[in-house]
Amino acid sequence: MTPSEDFVVTDRGGIVENSHRVHAAVVDAKGRLLYALGDPARMTLARSAAKPAQALAILETEGVERFGFDDADVALMCASHSSEERHIARTRAMLSKIKAEEADLRCGGHPSLSETVNRAWIRRDFAPTAVCSNCSGKHVGMLAGARAIGAGMEDYHLPDHPMQGRVKRTVAELCDLDAQDVEWGIDGCNLPTPAFPLDRLARLYAKLAAADGDDARTDLPARDAALARIFRAMVRYPEMVAGEGRYCTALMRAYNGALIGKLGADASYAIGVRASDETRRLGADGALGISVKIEDGNVEILYAVVTEILERLGIASPDIRSQLAAFHHPQRVNTMGVTTGGVSFPFKLRGSVPGEGASRLVAPAR
Amino acid sequence: MTPSEDFVVTDRGGIVENSHRVHAAVVDAKGRLLYALGDPARMTLARSAAKPAQALAILETEGVERFGFDDADVALMCASHSSEERHIARTRAMLSKIKAEEADLRCGGHPSLSETVNRAWIRRDFAPTAVCSNCSGKHVGMLAGARAIGAGMEDYHLPDHPMQGRVKRTVAELCDLDAQDVEWGIDGCNLPTPAFPLDRLARLYAKLAAADGDDARTDLPARDAALARIFRAMVRYPEMVAGEGRYCTALMRAYNGALIGKLGADASYAIGVRASDETRRLGADGALGISVKIEDGNVEILYAVVTEILERLGIASPDIRSQLAAFHHPQRVNTMGVTTGGVSFPFKLRGSVPGEGASRLVAPAR
Repeated sequence: MTPSEDFVVTDRGGIVENSHRVHAAVVDAKGRLLYALGDPARMTLARSAAKPAQALAILETEGVERFGFDDADVALMCASHSSEERHIARTRAMLSKIKAEEADLRCGGHPSLSETVNRAWIRRDFAPTAVCSNCSGKHVGMLAGARAIGAGMEDYHLPDHPMQGRVKRTVAELCDLDAQDVEWGIDGCNLPTPAFPLDRLARLYAKLAAADGDDARTDLPARDAALARIFRAMVRYPEMVAGEGRYCTALMRAYNGALIGKLGADASYAIGVRASDETRRLGADGALGISVKIEDGNVEILYAVVTEILERLGIASPDIRSQLAAFHHPQRVNTMGVTTGGVSFPFKLRGSVPGEGASRLVAPAR
Repeated sequence: MTPSEDFVVTDRGGIVENSHRVHAAVVDAKGRLLYALGDPARMTLARSAAKPAQALAILETEGVERFGFDDADVALMCASHSSEERHIARTRAMLSKIKAEEADLRCGGHPSLSETVNRAWIRRDFAPTAVCSNCSGKHVGMLAGARAIGAGMEDYHLPDHPMQGRVKRTVAELCDLDAQDVEWGIDGCNLPTPAFPLDRLARLYAKLAAADGDDARTDLPARDAALARIFRAMVRYPEMVAGEGRYCTALMRAYNGALIGKLGADASYAIGVRASDETRRLGADGALGISVKIEDGNVEILYAVVTEILERLGIASPDIRSQLAAFHHPQRVNTMGVTTGGVSFPFKLRGSVPGEGASRLVAPAR
């Protein structure tokens, strides 16, 4: 098959091995589509990329204030963490802040997202439990929210629980959608997870970045202040959002406060970029949001594509490039150390704003 | 995106999560295309699905006879095994039959294809070496072949070694292609690996099955006798071809001699079905070959698709179905045991023989 404009291709000795269809949307906080790839409106299960929106619903219960959660706790609410000791310890500390126990969590244990952690677990025959879930922070947050609004803690994870009703409204509002236009499935961690057009995910992240961009103001509306708190918590504690060696952590460290990035399972990704000369050059009215979905759910390819898109958009310095190179160009090396092939990006970002920037973006960077 | 006729779809709560493009070809030993899906001529790196062809090149050096390899050894030459103790022990025994050592192997160790084996390795801090390579049988076979033809053993893995020259000719002949129409890359195990149109892989397997179908004859041409030996070795020792819990082993056990099946990395698969009333009803002149490639390399989806195609072709009994059910309908269960979605097969097999069988094949089985 001839790779089309929407594909990433892996090769072996120059022969096409696999190809992966890519969808992406680049928007500003008003939702204007600036660049697109594949189907930017693809109905997409955001999975854990929706966590900052779920965290906003928790912040708006005032449970975070009431139980004294700090910014690292907020970062953990937005996390798909690697179940490192620091993540598990923080989960336990958050549980004790709300006088809850591990048994109150409605998520289950699973192998760590970190191979290093997994190997250590296997060596000591450790069977991971609920506090080890990569979504543990979100779950404790939901418990805190349920308690703050005076709802039962038992069924906080069920779609008809008042806390999840708040999440549904919040997600729809951040996406500028009617609630009935957001669809819901059940996530791997057992909480409801939303699906909406991919460009709305980018819009949501642009709003997170835009709220933080207003940090000179002290009179922010409450929602914007909460969005700004989430943005800052993530950039301040990138190690809480994922873990050592993981992409989200490396990305946010490399960009040093300029953006947040979050993975969703089955290969969705969202980025919110603070307003800058670069975002305005790209046609944004301030902050920028980027969302990506690999049609087949391949996460290794996702990381490569996200990094390539940042480079195409011209918002990657040489220093940033070097920090993300291993994700951008994943090694195709065999068991004897011989390079057998690589990953290439024949796709084209389509500029959606007439006359703006499209010409330098259509061609691959190399 | 609307799933097209060539796709497999996974969902979460009825919402499309991922989709995977499928290519498949169903042919007879003469190469007549009976059914197709996606692009049946997709240039495809066969990877380990080419091992029976590589084994034929080894058998034709007479190294197998000379060094006293038995049928289980031949099965291991065709294997992507799980590095279970029996696989490693047999590799060592084969090495001693040719008076070679592990250091003569030009493959390297890697994590086992079996999670059970991996966990055991991690527990005892075991670092896998060349004899643990899932391709170890093929490598010892290449060493035996190199020795049998009087070529050096040192560089048996290099494309210009006489043994690899024989492999190149053999592969092209089995595919009924000119040598220059087969392309070559370097495999994960460090041997050359061929690429050719997908339907040629099906043809190759139809030939393997057709040769065994002639077992009443005692005057088989040498090549057919060697092909028949490979077929029988694989069906007699399915546990040598993969391992406990692996698809190839389960498939060949379930079909009990009626077919061989072999995985290739990055999601190619090939099956050779012995001639029967069923294969003739499908339009084959005797034996049948089936080849499948998932465009994005997803192996879990590959197993589901191969099983679905066998069912669509009407060559699966209720007993066989039950043995392969876990591969056919992979569970989508979350960390709390809740079913979150499933895999569906909206694709259509296109009948390529006018008037034959197509009508019952175009619709999904459920």
